[in-house]
Amino acid sequence: MAGPAVVLLSGGLDSATTLAIAREEGFAPYALSFRYGQRHALEVEAARAVAQQLGAARHVVAEIDLRAFGGSALTSDLPVPTGRREAEIGRGIPATYVPARNTIFLSYALGWAEVLGTDHIYLGVNALDYSGYPDCRPEYIRAYEVMARLATRAGTEGGRSLRIHTPLIGLTKAEIVRRGLALGVDFSLTRTCYQPDSQGRACGVCDACLLRLKGFAEAGAVDPVEYRGS
Amino acid sequence: MAGPAVVLLSGGLDSATTLAIAREEGFAPYALSFRYGQRHALEVEAARAVAQQLGAARHVVAEIDLRAFGGSALTSDLPVPTGRREAEIGRGIPATYVPARNTIFLSYALGWAEVLGTDHIYLGVNALDYSGYPDCRPEYIRAYEVMARLATRAGTEGGRSLRIHTPLIGLTKAEIVRRGLALGVDFSLTRTCYQPDSQGRACGVCDACLLRLKGFAEAGAVDPVEYRGS
Repeated sequence: MAGPAVVLLSGGLDSATTLAIAREEGFAPYALSFRYGQRHALEVEAARAVAQQLGAARHVVAEIDLRAFGGSALTSDLPVPTGRREAEIGRGIPATYVPARNTIFLSYALGWAEVLGTDHIYLGVNALDYSGYPDCRPEYIRAYEVMARLATRAGTEGGRSLRIHTPLIGLTKAEIVRRGLALGVDFSLTRTCYQPDSQGRACGVCDACLLRLKGFAEAGAVDPVEYRGS
Repeated sequence: MAGPAVVLLSGGLDSATTLAIAREEGFAPYALSFRYGQRHALEVEAARAVAQQLGAARHVVAEIDLRAFGGSALTSDLPVPTGRREAEIGRGIPATYVPARNTIFLSYALGWAEVLGTDHIYLGVNALDYSGYPDCRPEYIRAYEVMARLATRAGTEGGRSLRIHTPLIGLTKAEIVRRGLALGVDFSLTRTCYQPDSQGRACGVCDACLLRLKGFAEAGAVDPVEYRGS
């Protein structure tokens, strides 16, 4: 029987592919999503659909509220940047950065992993992310593992050793799309847009949409989600 | 004007003293508490009273739900151990351990610290804790700082450096009581008991009560909270 692995699942393209990879690598995926006051709560519904399509062993949605602290366009009322060129997207830390978000998400994953008795956590960060977000960089992930091994009963009493798997970390968006398609991910269920309309249609112009569309184009595939005006 | 410091405030004796020390050390304390499905929600009310008495600049109670994962006597229906001798209390990891609790709490503190633009977090762990809880040990705290410096915009872009202050880490319970009294902490507002009754009276026999009572006795002081049958 496959052992459990906790997979952080946002409902986007990257985390869906990551869940499929965890399963391919022999784990029973325990999917973990968050409802954290994001403006696009459709993400959580997408995560549910993805978890079901890819056969997650269980899917938990944890309720957290980062709005208490403010500080990001994704959880407050600051405008989301649109229409930027890729060179701009990769430069500096974007306004959509949520303070300590991956640190908080990984901490919940660590708690669940401990209860499940597993040392395996999957996180879908990739090279495009870590050019912009400090908490997506490989050196951050390694430091998190060191801390986590000291934090838990398992790391203290046994010879066990927590590992954060980041299978997308060296991949381009096009490579992620190809990998996901090969593993049977239904990308029509995923949500990437920072500002979908009331019917859930993507805008096609925010940073996230631009990177996604470019990824599908370079992979020679058609993005199955609906865009406004398309 | 004093700069801000985030202080993790549980409503117990240790974190109240820690908040008073942060103020004494020149910071404006921003108190952070959690409602996490603990059976003794009176803790949160105690935290509010303590934050007010000691002049916190702000007090935020974040809602999180660790019950989704199970795994601890403090958030599920496992029995709390009572009547243990101090030698037993200090040995092994107690059943009241919450998976990854300090890792989760510190992650929220890190997010708030980033929004406030401060590098200072106060955490009231002490020697009695780290004999039992892996995530109270000094080596864990140091590893957390290393990770946190890589996680945030501040740590990435500036020469700044996050610090987790643990002013109680080398102190006995008696020393903490003396320090708190000297700084004007009103200990009647604090709550320590793992299983208070419906009127909020402490049991006097759980590990937390036993350590607290011993601390007051050794400090030559009287504990002002009410105990059942006293």
